[in-house]
Amino acid sequence: MDDTVLLKWVQQKQVTVPHLLLKHYTKLNMNETELVLLIQIQRLIDNGDSFPTPQTLSEQMTLSIEECAEKIGQLVRKRLLSIKNKRDDETNMVYEYCSLDPLWLQLIDYVETEQSEYEGTKTEEVEG
Amino acid sequence: MDDTVLLKWVQQKQVTVPHLLLKHYTKLNMNETELVLLIQIQRLIDNGDSFPTPQTLSEQMTLSIEECAEKIGQLVRKRLLSIKNKRDDETNMVYEYCSLDPLWLQLIDYVETEQSEYEGTKTEEVEG
Amino acid sequence: MDDTVLLKWVQQKQVTVPHLLLKHYTKLNMNETELVLLIQIQRLIDNGDSFPTPQTLSEQMTLSIEECAEKIGQLVRKRLLSIKNKRDDETNMVYEYCSLDPLWLQLIDYVETEQSEYEGTKTEEVEG
Amino acid sequence: MDDTVLLKWVQQKQVTVPHLLLKHYTKLNMNETELVLLIQIQRLIDNGDSFPTPQTLSEQMTLSIEECAEKIGQLVRKRLLSIKNKRDDETNMVYEYCSLDPLWLQLIDYVETEQSEYEGTKTEEVEG
Repeated sequence: MDDTVLLKWVQQKQVTVPHLLLKHYTKLNMNETELVLLIQIQRLIDNGDSFPTPQTLSEQMTLSIEECAEKIGQLVRKRLLSIKNKRDDETNMVYEYCSLDPLWLQLIDYVETEQSEYEGTKTEEVEG
Repeated sequence: MDDTVLLKWVQQKQVTVPHLLLKHYTKLNMNETELVLLIQIQRLIDNGDSFPTPQTLSEQMTLSIEECAEKIGQLVRKRLLSIKNKRDDETNMVYEYCSLDPLWLQLIDYVETEQSEYEGTKTEEVEG
Repeated sequence: MDDTVLLKWVQQKQVTVPHLLLKHYTKLNMNETELVLLIQIQRLIDNGDSFPTPQTLSEQMTLSIEECAEKIGQLVRKRLLSIKNKRDDETNMVYEYCSLDPLWLQLIDYVETEQSEYEGTKTEEVEG
Repeated sequence: MDDTVLLKWVQQKQVTVPHLLLKHYTKLNMNETELVLLIQIQRLIDNGDSFPTPQTLSEQMTLSIEECAEKIGQLVRKRLLSIKNKRDDETNMVYEYCSLDPLWLQLIDYVETEQSEYEGTKTEEVEG
């Protein structure tokens, strides 16, 4: 092996997945396949593809194109993913883009509720 | 909402998932559930739990304890996960720990093979 | 080169530095040396060293031990770093640990103020 | 505070800084200011700005535009940064872009040398 593969590894991007998401996705009514689908969408958005198609997603998952399309629909209905429109100021064209904001808002909501339940029982810390 | 939840978010760790893993896990014979299981194991190792049990994993996944145990066994047999022994120099006790090295070695191998097939057809770049 | 170096690279941890910190640290009255000092402290905490000494920090920076000690003091006075005490429940011993919480709270505060100034001039988006 | 700031935090990108870089940048003849300059360049590249100007960099650092320009020149001479040309296939235009590849290659080289010196003295591990 030469440095090419190592350099390829070093140059690649990383998706940073918050521990809170990994701890609580099941409480947001998601299963593992849906979690990976959302992580893949995040990866494609990071790479500049703001509206990943079922075909693109299917190529790097075990799901068929139809299953990807169906699961995207389910994620939108579960309010974990939204599809929005944005007007490009220069060209005045409207284009669609995916947003994971609903997922983050649901997760924040969950952590907030869990936190306020926890507040009453908090153990004391000595601060210096 | 107050700053507590925001601070909790800011303080949390992140699992950094390499784009190359997300692009190629299906070529390593993994499905989405196995990918998440390995990411969860990575999260727990990062948190200092070097040998996550099926029970711990089951609590934060859609799988039962038995399914987690079975899948861990499959991952070991597929050479994507290894269970090793290490002797603690201070106590002289031998303890078990999980390692994702086999996964990374298989992924490197895959990228290396893919790279060498690609070499012949590479397009030229003007360097300055 | 063999796979050893590549594996070492793959296995290493990463410090995830938020874009918001990189964009705004100068507004929090920090310079580049202080930023790196805080990132190094974060790295050592992630590795299980909850109270990095000036000596440890000095070994991997261009600063002397005395300069590290002095800068840590400055960061505490600027409320970017705090040194706290915690009682270990098992041993009942009190030990010191470093926390970057004050940094995050100041950054959140800054972003919040900036955000509320921005609210009035926000451009409209078409949502679908 | 409302969810706006939290959502802004959650949505932001992160620069992932390898522990090996933080441990060894001084051995690559870099100081803290140069390290932050390179991290800032990485951040801007991640955001789609492939050739960050001294002015852009200066706005989010303690350095003046002239100092940024000078330091970029030094980093190129130290072989930690390169400025390359690429032809856009669609427009046939040649444009400049920054690359941190030289930094990564130097770091890999350093780790490789350090590793081979270490090989002879490696302690044995019991593998299961």
